[in-house]
Amino acid sequence: MMSHQPLITLLTDFGWQDNYVGVMKGVIVGINPKLSIIDLNHGIPRQDVAAARFSLMSAYPYFPSNTIYIAVVDPGVGSQRQGVAIQIEGGYLVGPDNGIFSGILSLTPAIAAVSLTNPQYWQVPEPSMTFHGRDIFAPVGAHLASGVALTALGETINPDSLITLALTDCTPTESGLVGYVQYIDVFGNVVTNIPHQQLPKSPWGVKIHHRLIASGKTYSEVEQGQAIALMGSHGWVEIAVNGGNAKEQLNLAWGDRIEISKI
Amino acid sequence: MMSHQPLITLLTDFGWQDNYVGVMKGVIVGINPKLSIIDLNHGIPRQDVAAARFSLMSAYPYFPSNTIYIAVVDPGVGSQRQGVAIQIEGGYLVGPDNGIFSGILSLTPAIAAVSLTNPQYWQVPEPSMTFHGRDIFAPVGAHLASGVALTALGETINPDSLITLALTDCTPTESGLVGYVQYIDVFGNVVTNIPHQQLPKSPWGVKIHHRLIASGKTYSEVEQGQAIALMGSHGWVEIAVNGGNAKEQLNLAWGDRIEISKI
Amino acid sequence: MMSHQPLITLLTDFGWQDNYVGVMKGVIVGINPKLSIIDLNHGIPRQDVAAARFSLMSAYPYFPSNTIYIAVVDPGVGSQRQGVAIQIEGGYLVGPDNGIFSGILSLTPAIAAVSLTNPQYWQVPEPSMTFHGRDIFAPVGAHLASGVALTALGETINPDSLITLALTDCTPTESGLVGYVQYIDVFGNVVTNIPHQQLPKSPWGVKIHHRLIASGKTYSEVEQGQAIALMGSHGWVEIAVNGGNAKEQLNLAWGDRIEISKI
Repeated sequence: MMSHQPLITLLTDFGWQDNYVGVMKGVIVGINPKLSIIDLNHGIPRQDVAAARFSLMSAYPYFPSNTIYIAVVDPGVGSQRQGVAIQIEGGYLVGPDNGIFSGILSLTPAIAAVSLTNPQYWQVPEPSMTFHGRDIFAPVGAHLASGVALTALGETINPDSLITLALTDCTPTESGLVGYVQYIDVFGNVVTNIPHQQLPKSPWGVKIHHRLIASGKTYSEVEQGQAIALMGSHGWVEIAVNGGNAKEQLNLAWGDRIEISKI
Repeated sequence: MMSHQPLITLLTDFGWQDNYVGVMKGVIVGINPKLSIIDLNHGIPRQDVAAARFSLMSAYPYFPSNTIYIAVVDPGVGSQRQGVAIQIEGGYLVGPDNGIFSGILSLTPAIAAVSLTNPQYWQVPEPSMTFHGRDIFAPVGAHLASGVALTALGETINPDSLITLALTDCTPTESGLVGYVQYIDVFGNVVTNIPHQQLPKSPWGVKIHHRLIASGKTYSEVEQGQAIALMGSHGWVEIAVNGGNAKEQLNLAWGDRIEISKI
Repeated sequence: MMSHQPLITLLTDFGWQDNYVGVMKGVIVGINPKLSIIDLNHGIPRQDVAAARFSLMSAYPYFPSNTIYIAVVDPGVGSQRQGVAIQIEGGYLVGPDNGIFSGILSLTPAIAAVSLTNPQYWQVPEPSMTFHGRDIFAPVGAHLASGVALTALGETINPDSLITLALTDCTPTESGLVGYVQYIDVFGNVVTNIPHQQLPKSPWGVKIHHRLIASGKTYSEVEQGQAIALMGSHGWVEIAVNGGNAKEQLNLAWGDRIEISKI
């Protein structure tokens, strides 16, 4: 399946301060020194599965086939939650079954899935109760990338049984659309869940706290410090401040309601 | 030109918290999985083209030939500023035409340059208005590293027309030299634009806010918490505090005037 | 000795904000473009040799043979402290002789060691007084990984003469064990120096500031915000707060005394 040149991406909430990410890479190259590893990102807010779900979903279209996505944002590590490997078109997903992959799976369906119950492909027979990234997910991903069959990794499960992170959808209203904030980046750019395909053809703006922010195409259309609504690079309506921080300036938070109106 | 083993370096102000850097790498290895990528740094203060210029300039002497430097600190993304690729001795520079490469170009001249107008080498025909790093610069860099000719990427431009970031030069005075702070690192070490070749042969010090800081060779020559002026690892006079933060302790900022005096 | 597929790991206290780490990688691939480099971590608190020692020690068991560990946490750079390369089972250690490797050397003995006195394998004959990572340790590591003999790098020294970082051992008491905090990670998880092999067979807890924290196996055994003592992923007793920060909540610091009691 992974005929040649497989690539592993890592996404975690471990940050860069400790050696957790480095150790996962040691495990991977210890299994197969020819594997390429790309850090997707490790700055996911701690235990924030929704942010990880978004980050994976928005990165997926930009990676080649034969990519194995290892993702470890795992508040339930050591509990009854299962570890899974999921086959998709052009790759595999490896991590906890907590909805972290449900964004990618909204773009491309699961072809098959297993529960990671076979200790033969773990780092050690008795993994740490707190670091499955190192002891289960990294070695399983490295073995998948090296040609081990999905079904060898554990019991087959029904992909429909995988946990999905329920996000409120964007919905049309009489005068426009209502959606929600689904991600805020480190610059304070606020990403909604309103896809550009649903935008009105006529001029539109975003209503926030009784204020209307007009739409445009790029940051520099407005003065420094002014807010603008635009089609973000992720493919969703985004609210930004030219040279500033929209989250702080507009007092927005994850999950906030965002209303699109024709002008 | 890039006969074998090309290397790509990435420098941005995107930080590590989001997936922007990871996605650029996905685009690069999607075009050519054999390319090696090194992160130069992604912690440039947001939109600080001068810091990016310094960081590129001080790294350049330590990289091998056949390096493609992709740099994205790009306050004008989506505006009329052009994207460029520039051929230099031993490599290429790819990024916005905003002066970001003018430090490297002060060390080695541009041999040729193009404006990135050919969408054939972009990620998509209609790039995002806010993320040219992913949609233009990363794919163009990957294609250059894979053997595409510079002139295929767009219209040839005169290298003399490239934007230069104007920095005030270090100048001699009656009693010594006057220069400016051109970079402050994360430890608070303050890097001036005074090159070691211009220093007096006799003992010298740095005058800051009516105080004289004597020069030395290494941090540990002074007590913990004491300031010292020395030849920094970048090749410029640097002001440091042994075990401390010179920026905070001496109240220094980017652009501050620094005076070298014989003692 | 390094017959094929050598791997270089980097650990520093340089952080990711500046280009110091990127420049070290430029030097390494300039010497040998085929070398793989893994970042162990660069978030070691500034000049904290004890944290670096722990980070190297806890990563070592997860890396393959033929690994060269370059480590640069180096408060004495430019002083009389010597730079060293040390041969161990399955690899080499390269960095300052300040105890940074004494954790790994407690797991596997030094086979041979040299003082890095041969400038032939440095970046430049006269290295910077403040950045031996770039000018000595990175090039020496790259040459070792490329087949240069250890003894070519400088004068042979007795491994027993290497500096050891003295840590107070964990010791048994009448009612249990006494140890110390040896590391605190970015999440505020507090790692002691009490190895799991020495724990009582009967139920136990940790006494901190007149409070008893019961032991368990995994974070989720206790309520959100509650403290738990458990066998950490590094192999030592660790004190954590489910979904919280044990360091802050329990007011713990590096070196604090930790007492294990049977319950």
